[in-house]
Amino acid sequence: MALRVGVVGGGQLARMMIGPAVELGVELRVLAEEPGMSAALAATAVGDYRDADTVLAFARDVDVLTFDHEHVPQDVLAALLEAGVAVHPGPGALAVAQDKLVMRTRMAELGMPQPDWAAVTDAEELQAFLDDHGGRAVVKTPRGGYDGKGVRVVSAATEADDWFAALAEDARGGALLVEELVDFSRELAQQVARRPSGEVAVYPVVETVQRDGVCAEVLAPAPHGSERLRAVAADIGVAIAEGLAVTGMLAVELFETTDERLLVNELAMRPHNSGHWTQDGAVTSQFEQHLRAVLDLPLGRPEPTAAWSVMVNVLGGPAEQPLDARFAAAMADQPDAKVHTYGKAPRPGRKVGHINVSGDDLDDVAYRARAAASFFQD
Amino acid sequence: MALRVGVVGGGQLARMMIGPAVELGVELRVLAEEPGMSAALAATAVGDYRDADTVLAFARDVDVLTFDHEHVPQDVLAALLEAGVAVHPGPGALAVAQDKLVMRTRMAELGMPQPDWAAVTDAEELQAFLDDHGGRAVVKTPRGGYDGKGVRVVSAATEADDWFAALAEDARGGALLVEELVDFSRELAQQVARRPSGEVAVYPVVETVQRDGVCAEVLAPAPHGSERLRAVAADIGVAIAEGLAVTGMLAVELFETTDERLLVNELAMRPHNSGHWTQDGAVTSQFEQHLRAVLDLPLGRPEPTAAWSVMVNVLGGPAEQPLDARFAAAMADQPDAKVHTYGKAPRPGRKVGHINVSGDDLDDVAYRARAAASFFQD
Repeated sequence: MALRVGVVGGGQLARMMIGPAVELGVELRVLAEEPGMSAALAATAVGDYRDADTVLAFARDVDVLTFDHEHVPQDVLAALLEAGVAVHPGPGALAVAQDKLVMRTRMAELGMPQPDWAAVTDAEELQAFLDDHGGRAVVKTPRGGYDGKGVRVVSAATEADDWFAALAEDARGGALLVEELVDFSRELAQQVARRPSGEVAVYPVVETVQRDGVCAEVLAPAPHGSERLRAVAADIGVAIAEGLAVTGMLAVELFETTDERLLVNELAMRPHNSGHWTQDGAVTSQFEQHLRAVLDLPLGRPEPTAAWSVMVNVLGGPAEQPLDARFAAAMADQPDAKVHTYGKAPRPGRKVGHINVSGDDLDDVAYRARAAASFFQD
Repeated sequence: MALRVGVVGGGQLARMMIGPAVELGVELRVLAEEPGMSAALAATAVGDYRDADTVLAFARDVDVLTFDHEHVPQDVLAALLEAGVAVHPGPGALAVAQDKLVMRTRMAELGMPQPDWAAVTDAEELQAFLDDHGGRAVVKTPRGGYDGKGVRVVSAATEADDWFAALAEDARGGALLVEELVDFSRELAQQVARRPSGEVAVYPVVETVQRDGVCAEVLAPAPHGSERLRAVAADIGVAIAEGLAVTGMLAVELFETTDERLLVNELAMRPHNSGHWTQDGAVTSQFEQHLRAVLDLPLGRPEPTAAWSVMVNVLGGPAEQPLDARFAAAMADQPDAKVHTYGKAPRPGRKVGHINVSGDDLDDVAYRARAAASFFQD
């Protein structure tokens, strides 16, 4: 009988587990939010992941439960554990990914390098932080904040008045997170896989290029990375994976500062956009690795198979232009390009797929990946 | 709307199209022979591929029809064309893969190098061939003959008496195929993809190692292959693909003789065991390429991504030993090994999966692939 992995969430991350699951002989079962989602092929249930009964019923027929996203509420996770379900990553690790204040607190406890930060409950506390940090800072709502939402650069405490007002009305109380505005030269991401029995596999640190607050492309490994940089990034990734007992894939988003320090920016406890290059550029893709890790199977080698890989996200253009013709044009122009699609209707700015290209020369690889992706831009 | 490819047959070749179809955004629909087959995840119908109504009903909801095997009868194929279904490869090409006498005749017409052969209808004709070829020859039933069945080495015409008797009772009449026993040094396979509009993509020729009449492993590219050998093999592959107007993947099994000639042994018009290495060792896997080709999309680059790739078939051991534990042991021992499973219950001698390993050193790559596979031997 095949091992059965249940995935809560029917998005593109669950979709991209389908191929590796088929090859590994793993039966993938997906609890999708609605019909017709990216991972519809593997969907065995449709329902609300915030409803404990729905998730418990879904979990009854799987050996391990994992996630397409980190949004399953803690009370649902607790009910799963109570019912004896193997949940990976576990509630303790997920809690850190669900709340940026918890994350900053835990990073501090683990001694991880990170921007100066504070929990602020009113404008006065925020102003004090601003005064101490050159008059500008980043304010974040601890929960939510996906893809640039819930994040605001402020230079006066009054600019967060609406969020403080919302806090005051929130029965759970709480605080906002304020962080120093880091003078970074670029953004990096470090991925680590960890299985419950402890084995870890460390991917090379990569450079992530953001445009309009969204990941636009990934260069793997990070160019101009010194031996020291790679080792420090790997150490941070392993320390967090072990310190939080993460099971499955972990992505640590990092700032590289102009004075050559690495600071922890965000965490994701699942396959991550920064690791899509591994589908075509590493011995073991992050999607296969995640399945192996949550099943507590021996991990695969994370090493790259080419000197360089570049991933370029494909953002949807106007909905009236079908993707098919664009893909054909991209394929004709770049026969090396690996096209990955998410089965989503195109909409301006929406990630609908990505392109991977690997090879010996970074400039050439990046050129070809961008050329293939350009067929999707308007 | 996604492009829809229908696959007749629910075996492992259809199964291995699932991952590439998901990534390309192609909707794969499979007509399986029965429930629970290798490609069950993509099965949208279960039925008999020899029944025209069944196949026609299945074909109604797809853009292109293709195959997991070459056994769909010509009358069913004709009914599909009549109904306006796009069938790739087409009936004319499939006819050559379905009948070894037709194949030998067409190869002769195309001027392809092949063993001496004859169509023989009785023992007298067979004896004449034996007398002309050193007293031994290979006799084959033109239809069937998969994996060593329907093939017999004889040194006296009487050894085929039962087949001649069966022929005499067959209303369709016909003949047996007799071929000279080729003094070959090894077996090779050349894969070519061709799309309806004419573009071809040529994979490097590989060495296939048979054990007990079944493919045991594949070394890619073929070691010790001279520039000339590779070019001749490629030319043969392209000439056959174009000469027969094959659409999709074509595999040409070749004998390399001790006097350094290449002779056509068999043809397969679908993804083929000799190309499983491409899943992890080529820019474009044969499964993705087959989908692109039958959809008449631009073909992907067929070049290897590593110096060497070795594929070792996994044959099922006793049914009472579950595969899961074996896979875990293989993964732990060989973290580079790419494990591919077919979702089949293990049975002695049954192909239930394969292992791919790629790298710089052939001996090392072959050692690791065999080591991983050894966990499945008894």
